[in-house]
Amino acid sequence: MEEEFDWKMYFPVVLNALMSVVGFVVTLRLLPMSFDLFLKAGLSGRDMSKKAPPGGKPVQVPESLGVIAGAMFLIIMFLFIPVPFWTSWWRAENYEDFPHHRFVEFIAALLSICCMIFLGFADDVLNLRWRHKLQLPTMATLPLLMVYFVNIGSTTIIVPKPLDQLVGHSVNLGVLYYVYMGMLAVFCTNAINILAGINGIEAGQSLVIGISIIIFNLIQLTGDLPEINLFSLYFMIPYCAVCAAILYHNWYPSALFVGDTFCYFSGMTFAVVGILGHFSKTMLLFFIPQVLNFLYSVPQLFHFVPCPRHRLPRYNPQTDKLEMSYTKFKTKDLNILGRLVIQLFGMFRLIDIKQGVGENGEYTECNNFTLINFLLRLIGPTREPRLTTYMLIIQVIGSFVAFAIRYQLARVFYDVVE
Amino acid sequence: MEEEFDWKMYFPVVLNALMSVVGFVVTLRLLPMSFDLFLKAGLSGRDMSKKAPPGGKPVQVPESLGVIAGAMFLIIMFLFIPVPFWTSWWRAENYEDFPHHRFVEFIAALLSICCMIFLGFADDVLNLRWRHKLQLPTMATLPLLMVYFVNIGSTTIIVPKPLDQLVGHSVNLGVLYYVYMGMLAVFCTNAINILAGINGIEAGQSLVIGISIIIFNLIQLTGDLPEINLFSLYFMIPYCAVCAAILYHNWYPSALFVGDTFCYFSGMTFAVVGILGHFSKTMLLFFIPQVLNFLYSVPQLFHFVPCPRHRLPRYNPQTDKLEMSYTKFKTKDLNILGRLVIQLFGMFRLIDIKQGVGENGEYTECNNFTLINFLLRLIGPTREPRLTTYMLIIQVIGSFVAFAIRYQLARVFYDVVE
Ligand SMILES: [Mg+2]
Ligand SMILES: [Mg+2]
Repeated sequence: MEEEFDWKMYFPVVLNALMSVVGFVVTLRLLPMSFDLFLKAGLSGRDMSKKAPPGGKPVQVPESLGVIAGAMFLIIMFLFIPVPFWTSWWRAENYEDFPHHRFVEFIAALLSICCMIFLGFADDVLNLRWRHKLQLPTMATLPLLMVYFVNIGSTTIIVPKPLDQLVGHSVNLGVLYYVYMGMLAVFCTNAINILAGINGIEAGQSLVIGISIIIFNLIQLTGDLPEINLFSLYFMIPYCAVCAAILYHNWYPSALFVGDTFCYFSGMTFAVVGILGHFSKTMLLFFIPQVLNFLYSVPQLFHFVPCPRHRLPRYNPQTDKLEMSYTKFKTKDLNILGRLVIQLFGMFRLIDIKQGVGENGEYTECNNFTLINFLLRLIGPTREPRLTTYMLIIQVIGSFVAFAIRYQLARVFYDVVE
Repeated sequence: MEEEFDWKMYFPVVLNALMSVVGFVVTLRLLPMSFDLFLKAGLSGRDMSKKAPPGGKPVQVPESLGVIAGAMFLIIMFLFIPVPFWTSWWRAENYEDFPHHRFVEFIAALLSICCMIFLGFADDVLNLRWRHKLQLPTMATLPLLMVYFVNIGSTTIIVPKPLDQLVGHSVNLGVLYYVYMGMLAVFCTNAINILAGINGIEAGQSLVIGISIIIFNLIQLTGDLPEINLFSLYFMIPYCAVCAAILYHNWYPSALFVGDTFCYFSGMTFAVVGILGHFSKTMLLFFIPQVLNFLYSVPQLFHFVPCPRHRLPRYNPQTDKLEMSYTKFKTKDLNILGRLVIQLFGMFRLIDIKQGVGENGEYTECNNFTLINFLLRLIGPTREPRLTTYMLIIQVIGSFVAFAIRYQLARVFYDVVE
């Protein structure tokens, strides 16, 4: 049942955008109003890249404010629920025309996101262990996967439509496709969580990714599958709205910390949209800086090289600039993999190494393996807001590369090009 | 499409019960394992009805453990999602037979519950204000109401079935019915929250209500609408499982406090099941003790009579028994409504009043307006576990009365009797 250009199709997305604007303004005001609440609850942290006030204690910054952004996102989405389905309902001539399978996916996506915000907040409050960071996103993806599972079971029964070509395609991948989807949420969540440590970086990178997805969806609207791109827009526009509001307050000098909640919330929203919009591979392309950061971090994440609790850049109060942070270890304590990593990374000048440090020269120092430190290695000590700006420019360049790959080199990576 | 007795119809509910048993065991073990996590996070409180250890500080009891019960409930439900729909799917000969509208209701119900657990936990951590206790449940009910709204819009289009007679009925009530549903969640949540203060009472009363609903659903299974009663059982059996696990640890002497999270979670689960099972009026009958407690509490809840921060019974360390707790106020500070309440309640001997207390006899004392204090007034000082037991017996008697009303006096209260 293909249709010609139909302006009614765009009515929900316009309304969604209007609701998002309202949501942005409300979030912008609600955030500072809730700072006290968070400070009183002990949800706060010290900003390690700021000068302590003369003679005073370092200022405590309220943490986990991502939960406010997440809750506002949910409220916008809850109020929006009937809109796309109502319009399609009044056009539906009979029961079967109502897109129930789309509806259930929509609600399941919200359930996964809501569950993830809840778990992220629980992580912030209870300080769950590292392995939970892998388990919880998987758990929260369950409703989405289950609905996907049931829906495919049911939708393959009806006659093929453009959508079902894709759906049929995924069925062939079988259980592996579900594993992939489950891992997508884990990846997105943690990828954002480990590219952190300077004011505005979590919210900034997420906003760039979000806007990139919106642009991609808008381009694809003219393609064969406008509906699933509209579906993605319904989520991404409100997401970007609350994300922009939190970035405003998270920008240098940051009045809040976003918390794990925000990374969980963002990662899951991206994963959900990529899965249900059937563009998860394109979405991953927008994560190029995160992937690079992850690959670069592998030696420390898997403890080939000692990993300190915080890997954020070192603040130099004399210059008010950020410098590379280092990890220091006894040279002979390194195992074979660690030695190999240090040699390889050193050979390609990917890290800064100081060998023979300390008494007797027993110690080695090298910078922590994060993209931010690598950037500092290239450009030297930098003030924090400028560093965040550079990082976001890298993120934007990453998105340009992603679009180039998607639309120019697509035949190499994809079977299908629209 | 009515069917004869079909054993396959009961397969999902049996599997649900098996999963619930596993969930019960896991929750029972998981709870004590997470005590440390909660204590470290500062989520703890002092049990005011226990002797302090000789010479030591009073023991801190971990609080908000309801969040573990809620999360376990969600996991059971997430894993259960495909079961009822999968069985109906393999029987479905074509696409339309698949109960998509039921499916979307199921997911929306989980979304409302998940959202409520999240908000409850946020309340526990952030100590939200009293008015939020009315706003948050309304917010969390939104997805359910929205789906209900959309579904009714779509399901009334198809030919009438037994279900649609009910659905059509609600449409006629219009917007009022949605207000009623929204208020149901607020009522259930707060009704459980205010009947609190002694070990095991929150989890105990909820378990009695949950089991009463299960019994009601089992009776109704033989009636005209087995499917919606099955639907309710899918939620109530896992709920009772995690509730029983938490009651085990919450029983005197309590190793945990359930927190607002638990009351939010319980209230929403009851509301959801009542709404989607179309037996909200019957469900409210199971809340007779809560309604009595609420009505009795009104003078203090609306501040006709001063309301102290805690209204729980007073612990007497000499006798190790609980006694009535009192509120004390200047007699002349009472407004006209307050005086009326004191006189009326005193006249019917519903409260214990001591007039002319303090220097110059300026003060009046009366017991706090809670059902627990009223019971203590009747039976005198009582040990805590015995008091909880009596309260739960009252709850069970309430359920008997509810069944009597539902099945014997139903014609007075209901239009339809099956
Ligand atoms: Mg954490
Ligand atoms: Mg509270």
